[in-house]
Amino acid sequence: MLTFVGLGLYDERDITLKGLDAIKAADTVFAEFYTSPLGGKTIPALEALYGKPIVLLERSDIEEHADERILKHARDQDVVLLSGGDAMIATTHVDLRLRAIDGGIKTRVIHAPSIASAVAGLCGLQNYKFGKSATVTPPYNEGIISEVPYTTIRTNKERGLHTLLYLDLTMRIADALELLEAVEETRGGALLKTSVCIGIARAGSAEPVVKADYPAALKRYEFGALPHVLVIPGELHFLEREALIKIAQAPEDI
Amino acid sequence: MLTFVGLGLYDERDITLKGLDAIKAADTVFAEFYTSPLGGKTIPALEALYGKPIVLLERSDIEEHADERILKHARDQDVVLLSGGDAMIATTHVDLRLRAIDGGIKTRVIHAPSIASAVAGLCGLQNYKFGKSATVTPPYNEGIISEVPYTTIRTNKERGLHTLLYLDLTMRIADALELLEAVEETRGGALLKTSVCIGIARAGSAEPVVKADYPAALKRYEFGALPHVLVIPGELHFLEREALIKIAQAPEDI
Repeated sequence: MLTFVGLGLYDERDITLKGLDAIKAADTVFAEFYTSPLGGKTIPALEALYGKPIVLLERSDIEEHADERILKHARDQDVVLLSGGDAMIATTHVDLRLRAIDGGIKTRVIHAPSIASAVAGLCGLQNYKFGKSATVTPPYNEGIISEVPYTTIRTNKERGLHTLLYLDLTMRIADALELLEAVEETRGGALLKTSVCIGIARAGSAEPVVKADYPAALKRYEFGALPHVLVIPGELHFLEREALIKIAQAPEDI
Repeated sequence: MLTFVGLGLYDERDITLKGLDAIKAADTVFAEFYTSPLGGKTIPALEALYGKPIVLLERSDIEEHADERILKHARDQDVVLLSGGDAMIATTHVDLRLRAIDGGIKTRVIHAPSIASAVAGLCGLQNYKFGKSATVTPPYNEGIISEVPYTTIRTNKERGLHTLLYLDLTMRIADALELLEAVEETRGGALLKTSVCIGIARAGSAEPVVKADYPAALKRYEFGALPHVLVIPGELHFLEREALIKIAQAPEDI
């Protein structure tokens, strides 16, 4: 059996009791840290708390050598694959699960806290009002900036919806805002410039930072260590507005 | 301090280690079960596993008498409020948190697995392609059916996006599909009728049921005990299509 176990948001204590049960019952425990932010997780800390050796896998182990590295063990043993956030969110995990099913291997998913739902609670926005999300990635081919995140914000805002922007694993809120501003500069308009934005750092940790402000001011705010995400709200219900002011120190004029 | 702790998806073992830490350190532990499905949770099972007495609150305790029932204790004690799913998703929790902040009480959120991210992993759909979500509620005023869920599906589908439909706490998948079909009957068209839909029962339990089919067939499928949710997919990437066939036994023609 192959069990996908989510590690949750930040460190080794964000796993569920069911996730821990699965690790304790496993013959082999793998982990991969390339599909989601590392946060406060380290292999030694996970091993110390969970009481099991953990084998760190690289991208190529999963995407090129899954049969030999993972699936052959899962045919007659209980194998756990740990990853950050909720389990089975990354496409590469879905692909691995389908190959396991093709090979007659039973699979199971043990869920964990995800940034996708955590952002709503952290800043007080209504969960059901989030539209499509997107990822802000570094420029490629010597400076080409993807317009997908900006387009996603605009399309969601046209329907009054909020947008969660995942940032590339090493990217900071200020860097992401600069990339979005560069797209707005090319396209024209002031949709982003005049919108309050919410930066969230280290969700799930004991000291998450949640700060709302207009982009020019938010870029100068010191969010501290990674991981960072951004939320661009759509239309605000009066309770959402009050929450952004009281929880995320938004300017009173939003 | 007032700490909002999510209980996660299904039963008493879906809480995180951090959530359990907060309960063990608390002077008083409250729980409410009216903002999210009960699933396999019972107060005796929670008390036995967590080793603390738990006081069950009713809606009126939180929405009318919060000062006296909750906040006065949180002024000089550590108070935990448990609820299903991720913490702080229900509007009533955001409102309670703001009233705590108004009263100078420190607040904290401890996250847990949420159906909002779990559905993607359970059926193999890509998380970032979910649009706005909605809730299917029973008819009101002698038979008026809310059109909001149907409109949400249509608007998401126009953009190729998936829709997560929460069901009223006691509603079954077949009942929700009948309400959606009744709206389509009035409006005309065959958007829903010709779309594969995915029913998910008991997410987070040891035996979740995930089944994809066209509405006419899905209504006859036996999903078993609650809670139930529905997903109406938008455009399917080839890997999503393969996942629905292999994980959710969708018809091969989707």
